[in-house]
Amino acid sequence: MPHIPLPDLPGIRGPMAFRPETARPLNDLVDVLLRGPHSLTPAERELIATYVSSQNDCRYCQTIHGAIAAHHLGGNEELVTAVKRDFAHAGVSDKLKALLAIAGKVARSGKDVTADDVHRAREQGATDLEIHDAVLIAAAFCMFNRYVDGLATWAPDDPDFYRQRAAMVATNGYAASTVAT
Amino acid sequence: MPHIPLPDLPGIRGPMAFRPETARPLNDLVDVLLRGPHSLTPAERELIATYVSSQNDCRYCQTIHGAIAAHHLGGNEELVTAVKRDFAHAGVSDKLKALLAIAGKVARSGKDVTADDVHRAREQGATDLEIHDAVLIAAAFCMFNRYVDGLATWAPDDPDFYRQRAAMVATNGYAASTVAT
Repeated sequence: MPHIPLPDLPGIRGPMAFRPETARPLNDLVDVLLRGPHSLTPAERELIATYVSSQNDCRYCQTIHGAIAAHHLGGNEELVTAVKRDFAHAGVSDKLKALLAIAGKVARSGKDVTADDVHRAREQGATDLEIHDAVLIAAAFCMFNRYVDGLATWAPDDPDFYRQRAAMVATNGYAASTVAT
Repeated sequence: MPHIPLPDLPGIRGPMAFRPETARPLNDLVDVLLRGPHSLTPAERELIATYVSSQNDCRYCQTIHGAIAAHHLGGNEELVTAVKRDFAHAGVSDKLKALLAIAGKVARSGKDVTADDVHRAREQGATDLEIHDAVLIAAAFCMFNRYVDGLATWAPDDPDFYRQRAAMVATNGYAASTVAT
């Protein structure tokens, strides 16, 4: 049961409906970070969000963003699971692996990111913008994960719930999906 | 030296100038959370941001938000220092102490917040909105701190820099101060 009375919606959607004034910039942020024009695909950015959320042990966030990543990957849920379990041996590019390594350090502390981590990402072709956004996506999910779990929101068990929601978000975006429901 | 080439501005302002598309919702978020109409004063909300940033050891964030809190408190920098060092014995209300206790737990993990923590805040008169916002302010600064340190931005040493910047932000707000400089 959530720590405060919230509209009966799963995960972050309860507090977002409770406080639309903060929901708006939060949704604007993820729409830019995960769906805006970019040299990283939406799937790659959702994988970073999913990985950080799994490192932070946030069930709702890792499941919904994993489902959105899988949706963008044509339903490849196995790849999402592989990234969460051991990204270094998952079937993703070396560039994404280097960005995931940075993201994982950000999840612990921004200070853990070293010049060597950034150098390795550059060697794999990462641009300054990709490095910036990997850091900010990871940092943002450290916020979202704490928001969702700090209020003790609930998360559905049914994987189909997440698959259906993922299809809606992938089509319409975060802000539009929040307003619409 | 920052991990990627950034406009030569201190702290979060470098990456914000580098990526205005994400700076906009980030500034909108802090303007709502720290400056919007509220039953907690701007000083109280800035103290939560400052305390979380000090727990996360982010020098730029704790110094600028501490300076903004002090500005709202008529220049009472001693109170800001006392809250960072040991809020339980600082000269703030019991309600704010209970919210700071929740915020400190959010900084570690959202899962650390217990029903008892929330119950104690309610006993001191905290409303659902105040509890929600304490959680979200704490979560948001877990993002800002990681963003600032994950890119290895630089922070000025001169306390007067922060005092002057604090006066500008307190007067004009976050979004306006970022656009204007």
